[in-house]
Amino acid sequence: MSQSARTKLTETNSAPTGVSATNSVPANLTETNSVPANLTETNSVPQSTGVLVGALARHRTRLVPVEWGGKVLSIGGQAPVLVQSMTNTDTADAVATAIQVKELALAGSEIVRITVNTPEAAKEVAAIREHLDRMGISVPLVGDFHYNGHKLLTQFPECAQALSKYRINPGNMGGGKRRDDNFAQMIEVACRHNKPVRIGVNWGSLDHELLARMMDDNSKLAAPLGAQAVMRDALVVSAISNARRAEELGLSPNAIILSCKVSHVQDLIAVYRDLAARCDYPLHLGLTEAGMGSKGIVASTAALSVLLQEGIGDTIRISLTPEPGGDRAREVVVAQEILQTMGLRAFTPMVIACPGCGRTSSTVFQELADRIQTYLREQMPVWKNQYPGVESMNVAVMGCVVNGPGESRHADLGISLPGTGEVPAAPVFVDGQRTVTLKGDHIAEEFQTIVQEYVSRRYGARAI
Amino acid sequence: MSQSARTKLTETNSAPTGVSATNSVPANLTETNSVPANLTETNSVPQSTGVLVGALARHRTRLVPVEWGGKVLSIGGQAPVLVQSMTNTDTADAVATAIQVKELALAGSEIVRITVNTPEAAKEVAAIREHLDRMGISVPLVGDFHYNGHKLLTQFPECAQALSKYRINPGNMGGGKRRDDNFAQMIEVACRHNKPVRIGVNWGSLDHELLARMMDDNSKLAAPLGAQAVMRDALVVSAISNARRAEELGLSPNAIILSCKVSHVQDLIAVYRDLAARCDYPLHLGLTEAGMGSKGIVASTAALSVLLQEGIGDTIRISLTPEPGGDRAREVVVAQEILQTMGLRAFTPMVIACPGCGRTSSTVFQELADRIQTYLREQMPVWKNQYPGVESMNVAVMGCVVNGPGESRHADLGISLPGTGEVPAAPVFVDGQRTVTLKGDHIAEEFQTIVQEYVSRRYGARAI
Repeated sequence: MSQSARTKLTETNSAPTGVSATNSVPANLTETNSVPANLTETNSVPQSTGVLVGALARHRTRLVPVEWGGKVLSIGGQAPVLVQSMTNTDTADAVATAIQVKELALAGSEIVRITVNTPEAAKEVAAIREHLDRMGISVPLVGDFHYNGHKLLTQFPECAQALSKYRINPGNMGGGKRRDDNFAQMIEVACRHNKPVRIGVNWGSLDHELLARMMDDNSKLAAPLGAQAVMRDALVVSAISNARRAEELGLSPNAIILSCKVSHVQDLIAVYRDLAARCDYPLHLGLTEAGMGSKGIVASTAALSVLLQEGIGDTIRISLTPEPGGDRAREVVVAQEILQTMGLRAFTPMVIACPGCGRTSSTVFQELADRIQTYLREQMPVWKNQYPGVESMNVAVMGCVVNGPGESRHADLGISLPGTGEVPAAPVFVDGQRTVTLKGDHIAEEFQTIVQEYVSRRYGARAI
Repeated sequence: MSQSARTKLTETNSAPTGVSATNSVPANLTETNSVPANLTETNSVPQSTGVLVGALARHRTRLVPVEWGGKVLSIGGQAPVLVQSMTNTDTADAVATAIQVKELALAGSEIVRITVNTPEAAKEVAAIREHLDRMGISVPLVGDFHYNGHKLLTQFPECAQALSKYRINPGNMGGGKRRDDNFAQMIEVACRHNKPVRIGVNWGSLDHELLARMMDDNSKLAAPLGAQAVMRDALVVSAISNARRAEELGLSPNAIILSCKVSHVQDLIAVYRDLAARCDYPLHLGLTEAGMGSKGIVASTAALSVLLQEGIGDTIRISLTPEPGGDRAREVVVAQEILQTMGLRAFTPMVIACPGCGRTSSTVFQELADRIQTYLREQMPVWKNQYPGVESMNVAVMGCVVNGPGESRHADLGISLPGTGEVPAAPVFVDGQRTVTLKGDHIAEEFQTIVQEYVSRRYGARAI
């Protein structure tokens, strides 16, 4: 860290991308490619089957407002699918936590959750909120409660007030009557402070009593289900029955969000399909304990993309385990990449680059692709305000003539580098038209200048 | 490289995992969680909706055998979804190419494609095959042809013979009659050598004449489609009409595989759904030019998981652009991770790890998760033969008491590390039962020993 924590805390920054974005559904979501008969070849090719392009219509959910400092963010309904993340600093360390919240927010996290696990942590929540407000970091804070949330929220009303939402885990609040009382106490606080809650069930901490009861009932059936099926149903029942109970206790149905996290892809898909079919509360999606490295990214993306494609999911979090020393904000970038590559939202210009093969001069085009991708992401904190719409730009960096000119034409901006044995010249394509051809040792710098000029010309005029 | 290329070439290695695997469909693929009424809570929770768990049944395709050196691998039908990759070495450098094929195969690539772009490259293909055979690398080689494939395959029959499959791009073989003649010439070679072909269409090199004709026809319609829809249809028509033509030229329908690669997720999903509905050739899936870093992984996983979940796809390739100096085999690992996390196949034990939060001692559990994941992957070249079934093992490394014990119980082996402020003790769970509790400075070593012993005990008895 090149600056001291205190210095960082006094910086002012603008709101993360997308907080006030509207859910403008891309035009192609409703486009079909049902090609009429006369468009198809005559040699016995069956006709196009009229598949829908894009994700299915969003599963209909209620709209839950999340408020902080006079601002409001909506979860559910037709609001954009929001990106969440969570800190891994000690919440009792208000400065460290505020800095990490800031980093996550600047990376694009639209909601940030912090654990509130001890009185020391609860005492600092209002201070964290103040630090963020002072830095101009406009992001709602969610408190994550387990075991003692009823006590902390009651004993520290300024914590209850500073948080924008509470996450309640019905599996981690004791058993029997005690559980019911603790749950009621937390819902009462939510009602009193007018805060929404997420009833966040997790198969790692599923309500033991509920599961045991459902397992018993199942065993008495003529044809009992497998334990895994009962477990999945118990997750859904736990979430929905606690939501109903919260409503009975006076919480508005428009202040309830549900999640049922499991760590296996197919279980998650099954549970959320079931949840979506059985209620209209907004759903927070995430594969819990996804793990480290590409496995965590792959597992999360596989599960979430299937659900998002079916219109299920109102907020998402990617639970990556950072490598030692790794960047916590990576989970935010991955969440954005899922939403953007699926065509649901746009956050930052995307670079399309070929994988290279025996035809390409690997190092040259790998370096250019890397350079341009890094350059684009680094510009976004400035560009997102200066050049609205630039986040939807596609740039192609291609390594040879096979797909190079074609892919470059499809992009907003593209460059087709010469493969091994080709004439050492790199044609540049702008809006589908071939323009200049770059040669020599400064192709990278020249292409970057072309990108800059294009962004300024195309998106600058629309700036406020 | 610590050893010279020649030294490496004399090493002997076993076949990559999965080449002879059968497609044992996991039991849970047909399990439903339609819970009877009496299992659900009474307080107004709607009943479970009976969602299917697992991917849909595989789209029915023909079975295409791919042969090399007396071995055979089947693509399509109910055969496992296979992992492919492609070299980025100069094929004319036989040693470098053989080494990279070996690396990709040992990482788990079950089919490896090499570009055959020049006479110099074509001359070396048989030598590459021989190098691989001598090293005991049992993987079929596919030749990637563009522009001059008809000439190379005709002029170098030993190349045509050494390859196990040809990839033909109908968009890159000239126009008009010349295109038809070149295509026919390649199909003739395939028939003569009894080789299957992949008709690999790519929107970066789509047949211009076909697209222009279809665009013209479309423009004459009363309600013309968007250009993007015509483009998608042209990709499918190009693939299927060329396959039909290959059949007319004498190629067996059981020697044809199709692909239609595009670089945007929703286009890929739409194109392959359409392709699956319109033909029964096996389909090779891949998002072309996916790009670099997590964006490439996310975009590929998003597109492929939606399709695989629908039972579409018989082989996959992940077209990642390696970072400069990056490992080419990463694309193989990601492909395996997609298939394994989706429950379609198993390759290596998986580590479930929580993302950490303000409750966890981040460094301790991140280091343990990293260590165990690395350890497991490093053991697999030995374990896969010694301990059959170990590739399906799940290990949980958890950071605190919230979900730690629960998630650890669900795994084959799990450890729940103490969070901040918890008693410094890490209970270990084996097959869902709590066993020893580890304490002190050697938790990592002791847990690794427990993993070793578990693997030996559980999977050793089943070894041949």
